[in-house]
Amino acid sequence: MTKSPLTRDDLLAMDRDDALAPFRALFEVPDGVVYLDGNSLGALPRATAARVADVVKQEWGQGLIRSWNDAGWMDLPGRIAEKIGQVIGAAPGGMAVGDSTSVNLFKLLSAALELRPERRVILSERGNFPTDLYIAQGLAALLARGHELRLVEPHEVAGALDDSVAVLMLTHVNYHTGAMYDMAGLTQAAHDAGALVLWDLAHSAGAVPVDLAAAKADFAVGCGYKYLNGGPGAPAFLYVNPDLLDRARFPVTGWWGHAAPFAFEVGYRPASGIARATVGTAPMISIAALEVGVDIALQAPMAQVRAKSLAMTSVFAQLISERCQGFGLNIISPADPALRGSQVSVAHPDAYPIMQALVSRGVIGDFRAPDVLRFGMTPLYVGFAELWDAVEILRDVMQTGQWREARFNERRKVT
Amino acid sequence: MTKSPLTRDDLLAMDRDDALAPFRALFEVPDGVVYLDGNSLGALPRATAARVADVVKQEWGQGLIRSWNDAGWMDLPGRIAEKIGQVIGAAPGGMAVGDSTSVNLFKLLSAALELRPERRVILSERGNFPTDLYIAQGLAALLARGHELRLVEPHEVAGALDDSVAVLMLTHVNYHTGAMYDMAGLTQAAHDAGALVLWDLAHSAGAVPVDLAAAKADFAVGCGYKYLNGGPGAPAFLYVNPDLLDRARFPVTGWWGHAAPFAFEVGYRPASGIARATVGTAPMISIAALEVGVDIALQAPMAQVRAKSLAMTSVFAQLISERCQGFGLNIISPADPALRGSQVSVAHPDAYPIMQALVSRGVIGDFRAPDVLRFGMTPLYVGFAELWDAVEILRDVMQTGQWREARFNERRKVT
Repeated sequence: MTKSPLTRDDLLAMDRDDALAPFRALFEVPDGVVYLDGNSLGALPRATAARVADVVKQEWGQGLIRSWNDAGWMDLPGRIAEKIGQVIGAAPGGMAVGDSTSVNLFKLLSAALELRPERRVILSERGNFPTDLYIAQGLAALLARGHELRLVEPHEVAGALDDSVAVLMLTHVNYHTGAMYDMAGLTQAAHDAGALVLWDLAHSAGAVPVDLAAAKADFAVGCGYKYLNGGPGAPAFLYVNPDLLDRARFPVTGWWGHAAPFAFEVGYRPASGIARATVGTAPMISIAALEVGVDIALQAPMAQVRAKSLAMTSVFAQLISERCQGFGLNIISPADPALRGSQVSVAHPDAYPIMQALVSRGVIGDFRAPDVLRFGMTPLYVGFAELWDAVEILRDVMQTGQWREARFNERRKVT
Repeated sequence: MTKSPLTRDDLLAMDRDDALAPFRALFEVPDGVVYLDGNSLGALPRATAARVADVVKQEWGQGLIRSWNDAGWMDLPGRIAEKIGQVIGAAPGGMAVGDSTSVNLFKLLSAALELRPERRVILSERGNFPTDLYIAQGLAALLARGHELRLVEPHEVAGALDDSVAVLMLTHVNYHTGAMYDMAGLTQAAHDAGALVLWDLAHSAGAVPVDLAAAKADFAVGCGYKYLNGGPGAPAFLYVNPDLLDRARFPVTGWWGHAAPFAFEVGYRPASGIARATVGTAPMISIAALEVGVDIALQAPMAQVRAKSLAMTSVFAQLISERCQGFGLNIISPADPALRGSQVSVAHPDAYPIMQALVSRGVIGDFRAPDVLRFGMTPLYVGFAELWDAVEILRDVMQTGQWREARFNERRKVT
């Protein structure tokens, strides 16, 4: 934004010019809510309820076991995987859908380590999403071969790539700060050092431009329930560079990854393609819901999504700067658009009760320990004037001290 | 059955006397279908569609991220797990729901091996469901510590329990034959040999009496989409004897298994209870559907379920013997009720096209390579007269040679 200070009319004008505005009608957004938590759980697409009802009543209820063929359940996860692949620039044949992000991390990290048997370091960022770190720790403990999870700060990553590093494992857009890595550059740097790269795209897929094939990424995982709007706990996805597939061995060798699952052979033989990275039967009702969200993401031109996302994060940050001065709110997301995902994170020592107060007023973001208010920007169903309204409520909450009365609820699930 | 030959009137009389008959109204069963494949995909409970619609439209659509607390999503998998635990006699605090059966096998088998570090043998049955064998093979390959998957025939299991066996891993009711092991006896024998036991209850939970606590079982896994009627690909369950929990380490250390998932600590610390065996976010729509099926299973007295199941398998086998002579059909399920699960498996060299012909006539069982017609008996929604009708259609298919024209479809998903 060059104009300062911004007015609500400026934002209404941006809404009128918003090429993505028609997407809003594809989603249910409750009245009285400004939903800035689509980075934790994406909104409900209007078409999902009917699709899910059809899967339950017709495909399951009437088709019963026949629906594995007749309703195409067998092929559904693979079809959705290829669609997600189009959103993130995956090389064809490298995508699978199923399991959770954590389980997929385990499978791919194991495969990566095995492809670099002479190396012992998993390099990552100290502030990576914890499950990524935990999975690496658990795998290292299981293998008991001296693997080390080496944690550095984001600016130290490139310099830490030496010939001890087997795998560089990073989350492309940091869940906490919204800071985004240069995927192509770091992948190249890792390859130059002889390491493989595993990208976690939980906060990227559907939110920022990703081109796994162009970046020559080796492995990636990601989440269906954030910017892909696949529903609570939607099955996750994984990506393996097809050039690695023949050599990659995945440790959780379930029957869906077998070359001939229905031959019921005694010995495991991996499927020839990406199916070897799959394990068991996918939860089809949740899978069907995921596809509806993915189909919408496919319709939205990523250049437009990115442009609006950056405008939203810029506007939101500017509004906080202009209208919430003196409250001790500290924006920790990068100012440089090239380094910014689709969220604005704001630190405050009392972030938790402040967010509780905001939620009680219909401004739904989330809290991240120890001190961050997190506001996710979802260009497909949030408009600019809503950002004004959200910041006004934030200002009121801070000015009136309403947050001091907010209840404390430790168990909030928001990722 | 003492009466022979049976008549359709005999079976109608059994239906009139069936204490479980009212359960049929709780399920959708399509007109014109005799559904004998509930051991692969259980039928749709009538209440599921409304529950799923509520989760989608209200909890997700209106509640959005707030539903993790406000709609109880946080606690839902644990609540369902405890309910399944009541169906299978689990010791309190030992059950979790999530992931697939295959992933759960991986986690529990790994934990079991680590509890017997001086031993190297995983003992199982050659005819075990393949994913169980594959998971063991994959884990052994990953560990690369000389673990061996030793496969024997069912009658050889007890004799093969020596001091090299770390884990006895068996499926309680065999998917192929329907033969059932003596869980308590073999668990005791394994313990006497110093081994741990992991039971796969895929074809047991909700179908036959199981008392994990009384049997002192160490570990168990199972499936939500068969006799628990949880829906296609419903999330699986796992059980760990609570006495082992403090010492058991699960290798897939996701953030849901952390002692404080929302503290976002850098280091993994396992949760104190069974939560340590969980990994990532569960697919909530499929989870919600699962609960509806489990709630019905909880209402059905297992003694009645077992009595009707045995009557059904007995009647079905008798009808085939009496009415399908000379067609080369060979019943391979155990004649002894104590050794029989809730299915009748019938071998025939042309089992595949025969089953295709049956399905085209509305008698839905399934085929298991290389030569088995599998008929699952689900006491909650199948009646005795339907068994007569199914066998009459089988007789007609065999007599007319209709099966010779049946299409061949290799990809049928039926487990």
